[in-house]
Amino acid sequence: MTENDRDYIQSIERGFAVLLAFDASQPNPTLAELATATDLSRPAVRRILLTLQKLGYVAGRDGRWSLTPRVLSIGQHYSASHALTDAALPVLVEISEATRESASLGVLDGTEVVYAARVPVRRIMSINVSVGTRVPAYATSMGRALLAWAPAEVLEWVIENTEFDRLTPDTVCTPDGLRAALETVRRDGYALTSEELEQGLISLAAPVRDATGAVVGVTACSTSAGRSTPERFRAEVAPLLVEKTNALSAQLGYRGR
Amino acid sequence: MTENDRDYIQSIERGFAVLLAFDASQPNPTLAELATATDLSRPAVRRILLTLQKLGYVAGRDGRWSLTPRVLSIGQHYSASHALTDAALPVLVEISEATRESASLGVLDGTEVVYAARVPVRRIMSINVSVGTRVPAYATSMGRALLAWAPAEVLEWVIENTEFDRLTPDTVCTPDGLRAALETVRRDGYALTSEELEQGLISLAAPVRDATGAVVGVTACSTSAGRSTPERFRAEVAPLLVEKTNALSAQLGYRGR
Repeated sequence: MTENDRDYIQSIERGFAVLLAFDASQPNPTLAELATATDLSRPAVRRILLTLQKLGYVAGRDGRWSLTPRVLSIGQHYSASHALTDAALPVLVEISEATRESASLGVLDGTEVVYAARVPVRRIMSINVSVGTRVPAYATSMGRALLAWAPAEVLEWVIENTEFDRLTPDTVCTPDGLRAALETVRRDGYALTSEELEQGLISLAAPVRDATGAVVGVTACSTSAGRSTPERFRAEVAPLLVEKTNALSAQLGYRGR
Repeated sequence: MTENDRDYIQSIERGFAVLLAFDASQPNPTLAELATATDLSRPAVRRILLTLQKLGYVAGRDGRWSLTPRVLSIGQHYSASHALTDAALPVLVEISEATRESASLGVLDGTEVVYAARVPVRRIMSINVSVGTRVPAYATSMGRALLAWAPAEVLEWVIENTEFDRLTPDTVCTPDGLRAALETVRRDGYALTSEELEQGLISLAAPVRDATGAVVGVTACSTSAGRSTPERFRAEVAPLLVEKTNALSAQLGYRGR
């Protein structure tokens, strides 16, 4: 479908473009800054802002605009409509309590993994991910566990559309390297990555399956190279993560091993 | 501004209406069900769904539609553009660890409080709130702490626009009752509510201030009547909650006591 298709409503796209132009680098933009960021005309951005303001998603003050907490409720509708998030949260708490590390639930969205739930611990040096944060699938344990059991056409699509970057000296950043890594994940039953997304970050992820056996998400647990090693983290945490995650799958109706 | 105003873009409103029609009671609606829920025509809903699908926010399969995890990223832009959420999370973890109860950050949105961050504990009988969940301000400790120090015109607007319901036998559900309760909150420096929103729920909230002294959010900690009493919860948790929350305010630049 092209943007000129008669079934495509361009003003909805533009509404989201303006909403998403607010971020950490530009939390309180002016109308002119939003026009630059979105490549839209100032009158167009003005109409969109007035509409979003009326709907309660943005607020304007002294010529600067900001998002309101109402935008959080949009994500809440995702959580409310996906039993996965509700079912996972108590399991994440258990994982976090048993490991004294933060625990997360991730789901695949295109070539990226989105954090759908997270239980943080204080110990993490800087807590810089939250629900809705996106990370590339190819370079993370969550992505690997999601891709290892994905349908072939999904995996091929992700490989075709991924920009493989050497994010650290250890990043697996070729399609063939990724395929080999997924082979290991399938053999182990979980994914382990060490310092591929970021130096110092070690991470484990295990697949969550629904009643049909499809992998609908992953649980993950991370630590830092200062607190553990890949070998120790694997030995100490992988069996627990897999056990708790299998219990979550059973809760979702999965009847496999 | 009325909906007929030339600056109002109705298709943006309709886009959100369709997006928000997905919820726990209707996680996988058909086009016809969405048309009924939104009061829009089927052709209109169809065009909106195709647009939202192109943008990656919904997915269709076998005549049923669902939200994708991409909607979580909209809320993430709020968190990323509000330093409050980032600063609060480690403090919530501390509060939760010290009290063995879940801890939350709330912000005011209209007459309601929205959960902007949350650290759950397993112990809670059923974890049924998450980031983005909304509760009425008048009947919750979070709302009381937000309203107690709100500008007079904000408080008046909230009182005028609130539908006061007797949610439990103990709910303070008159404007005068609320004003008296806010007086107590200002005197104590924090808000305590017991079984006003729901029977069995006891909750404390303390104000978070920014550099200007404005209350920009509240931290909160809850327990159940089975585990504590209002008097015990106040004695054991209020001093800690206030201390940790004051430290958070100081981090945000507040220089008051």
